[in-house]
Amino acid sequence: MPHAEEGTGHPGDGGLLILPVRGVGELRPGDDLARALADASSGAGPGLRDGDVLVVTQKVVSKAEGRLIPLDPDDLEAKARLVQNESVRVLRRRGELVISETRHGFVCANAGVDLSNVAEGEAALLPVDPDRSARRLRADLRRHLGVERGVIISDTFGRVWRRGVTDVAIGCAGVVAVLDLRGTSDAGGRPLQVTEICLADELASAAELVMGKDRNVPAAVVRGVPTEWLGDGSVGTDVVRRPEEDLFR
Amino acid sequence: MPHAEEGTGHPGDGGLLILPVRGVGELRPGDDLARALADASSGAGPGLRDGDVLVVTQKVVSKAEGRLIPLDPDDLEAKARLVQNESVRVLRRRGELVISETRHGFVCANAGVDLSNVAEGEAALLPVDPDRSARRLRADLRRHLGVERGVIISDTFGRVWRRGVTDVAIGCAGVVAVLDLRGTSDAGGRPLQVTEICLADELASAAELVMGKDRNVPAAVVRGVPTEWLGDGSVGTDVVRRPEEDLFR
Repeated sequence: MPHAEEGTGHPGDGGLLILPVRGVGELRPGDDLARALADASSGAGPGLRDGDVLVVTQKVVSKAEGRLIPLDPDDLEAKARLVQNESVRVLRRRGELVISETRHGFVCANAGVDLSNVAEGEAALLPVDPDRSARRLRADLRRHLGVERGVIISDTFGRVWRRGVTDVAIGCAGVVAVLDLRGTSDAGGRPLQVTEICLADELASAAELVMGKDRNVPAAVVRGVPTEWLGDGSVGTDVVRRPEEDLFR
Repeated sequence: MPHAEEGTGHPGDGGLLILPVRGVGELRPGDDLARALADASSGAGPGLRDGDVLVVTQKVVSKAEGRLIPLDPDDLEAKARLVQNESVRVLRRRGELVISETRHGFVCANAGVDLSNVAEGEAALLPVDPDRSARRLRADLRRHLGVERGVIISDTFGRVWRRGVTDVAIGCAGVVAVLDLRGTSDAGGRPLQVTEICLADELASAAELVMGKDRNVPAAVVRGVPTEWLGDGSVGTDVVRRPEEDLFR
């Protein structure tokens, strides 16, 4: 069984286990997401343990928070206006595709406006403050279940230089977002060149592997996480690159 | 125990298990990497099973292939020349940092030239053809062990819009690099918007979580992979974005 090796900062020999959380059901604005996730995790699900990290897709968070807006999927003009509205800056356009920066500082396609896995005639917008959403979900899970766990809210973004999409973290709570290894040595005792690992994005990618896009698996449990990964992280503060430090904007 | 649900294309309820491969030892040019990995995986290691995916870091592949070059770590001019030499195009510079495109089409810092976890006075270069390296390693593992498994060669790259680094695939064999879901519907029966998942990069990121950068864990086993993920993939062909289709070069 995966469990972390105490004090090493790394998962133990049992490794990490990535478990799907199924059967969360359809969420509507105002629904108790923590309750739905807790119920889906118990019974036949992976359960919830102290120290697990729960990765939840943006879609169910947006639904529970009422971040839904009526949109005719065939009305391209209305869709373009919505994307424009959700953007603070458009970086590139090609045909229908818009790469823009959102209020959160995320650079992604269509400002995160999403028509998949929502009801016909609706679009899901990104949560207003995904770090806050993660903190709230974490507090609610603690209240419902009495377990202390990290929470990551994930979404699916493209990349500039590479084809295909991967899941990244758009919000987190109780998890270190970027693991800072500055001052650490390599196995040979030399200072590490690569020193800041985006743990939150790697956890989001790992979780996506058990979710899929074509079925109702909106969350995953990562088990075997070392205690050093649990702490005060924020995607907004730690991961989003400010325009002034970015070489490509 | 993780095992894939047959025919679904997804990991089963047992999820995915990510296991570190320790004790591979120091590799030198000409060493049999497949033998070293096979030995390290057996005994106290995770073992090797049909259908597992083995993720191996670029560093050990480069060492075994002799992609090492003498470099005084304090000679910044020699380092700059080497980076220039490994680049086909420099995209951005800031101080010592160079973002360039390699012969493979990878866009990364310092053209993948790496001074960590190599001997003092040496630098590691990227494999000449990482997909070919993966195919060779896969064939050697089959010969040594009689198991059929996918192989991914990973490296650590930065991202344009996000802080921190994550591991991505630079080569693969026997694994689908990009999972194409075009023509697939979401859970509600509507066509999926996001249709090409970079499985190889998500697997590389998941594997990094059990490796760490400061110790000798140069490989990881991913167990519970659905058979639909095993197939003919290539990072060079499927993942590298050609300059002409890229909006930011």
